[in-house]
Amino acid sequence: MPPNASRRSERSRRAILDSALDLVGEVGYARTSIEGIAARAGVGKQTIYRWWPSKGAVLLDALLALSEGEEGEVEDLPDTGDLEADLKLVMRATVAELTDPRYDAPMRALATEILHDPALRAQWSERLDGPLRRLKEERLRSAQAAGELPGELDIALAIDLIWGPVFHRWLQSEAPLTAEFADQVVASAMHGLRG
Amino acid sequence: MPPNASRRSERSRRAILDSALDLVGEVGYARTSIEGIAARAGVGKQTIYRWWPSKGAVLLDALLALSEGEEGEVEDLPDTGDLEADLKLVMRATVAELTDPRYDAPMRALATEILHDPALRAQWSERLDGPLRRLKEERLRSAQAAGELPGELDIALAIDLIWGPVFHRWLQSEAPLTAEFADQVVASAMHGLRG
Repeated sequence: MPPNASRRSERSRRAILDSALDLVGEVGYARTSIEGIAARAGVGKQTIYRWWPSKGAVLLDALLALSEGEEGEVEDLPDTGDLEADLKLVMRATVAELTDPRYDAPMRALATEILHDPALRAQWSERLDGPLRRLKEERLRSAQAAGELPGELDIALAIDLIWGPVFHRWLQSEAPLTAEFADQVVASAMHGLRG
Repeated sequence: MPPNASRRSERSRRAILDSALDLVGEVGYARTSIEGIAARAGVGKQTIYRWWPSKGAVLLDALLALSEGEEGEVEDLPDTGDLEADLKLVMRATVAELTDPRYDAPMRALATEILHDPALRAQWSERLDGPLRRLKEERLRSAQAAGELPGELDIALAIDLIWGPVFHRWLQSEAPLTAEFADQVVASAMHGLRG
């Protein structure tokens, strides 16, 4: 593609992703349509259908764009040698995201859409959940190597124990999702895992 | 209502609830319609609309009917004086439900539908989640009173720590949901909470 066309195309892509997030935040996922996203982004709806198979797929890319760094990569989890302190930082950031309206509505929509759309679930696993899970596994293995966690610990179990409570409160509870809650979950999960 | 009409009406209600569960299990929630449920139950769709505002509401009643005892009440959690053993029983039963096809698809559908439908969420809170949460709170308070858990423990936090990991694995993970996993979650959560 000549440089100008490529720049234009990247501009359209960004406008589509931003419009998708805006609309889901404003009117909800159910009332967000490809037509609406196209109108707001100032592109034809064929442009969207050329790049994405469904509005769920647009949303997945929009969320990936939000969480990616400048180079388009998911960042490593911090590893200062103190697992509990590092996980508290990570969990506070997660709680901040889950309570930020820009993320909350789209992530809720995606969490439910993947239960009904196997193709989208495969994309979500491959591009968002899988890479995140590998970062978590890596950080927990490093803690095992450093003697902070038992060597025989089941890492998949540890991930459910550490991240499950925050996810549970986010989707299932009316109780507030706060930084203090994040700290308590990490402290309690770590205490349980060390035993 | 004369006795015969009342019996007929109860028979229709049961047929509708069974048909809703069957259809969601067979073709998925998205492709289940009020028309489809009515046809399978042998009633007119107006009968369904007279009793329920949406297919999500039918499904909620169907799940409530599944989990109710003979007298239509949710059962207490066991209280033998050994919290860890009691919770392992409860969690194994939960895992058995979540992996039973008759429950899995409808509960998945409901878990996601309440995120988009505030009226249904209110019903779900009032009739399913609220009563269950109160039973959990009651059992944990009884353990506090018996000295099995610290008196100052935040009960809402404890519920997220105990039930969150199973919910997380059910909705977010490909890893198997087994009785052994249920035991490990309870043991680890209890260890974390006692500290």
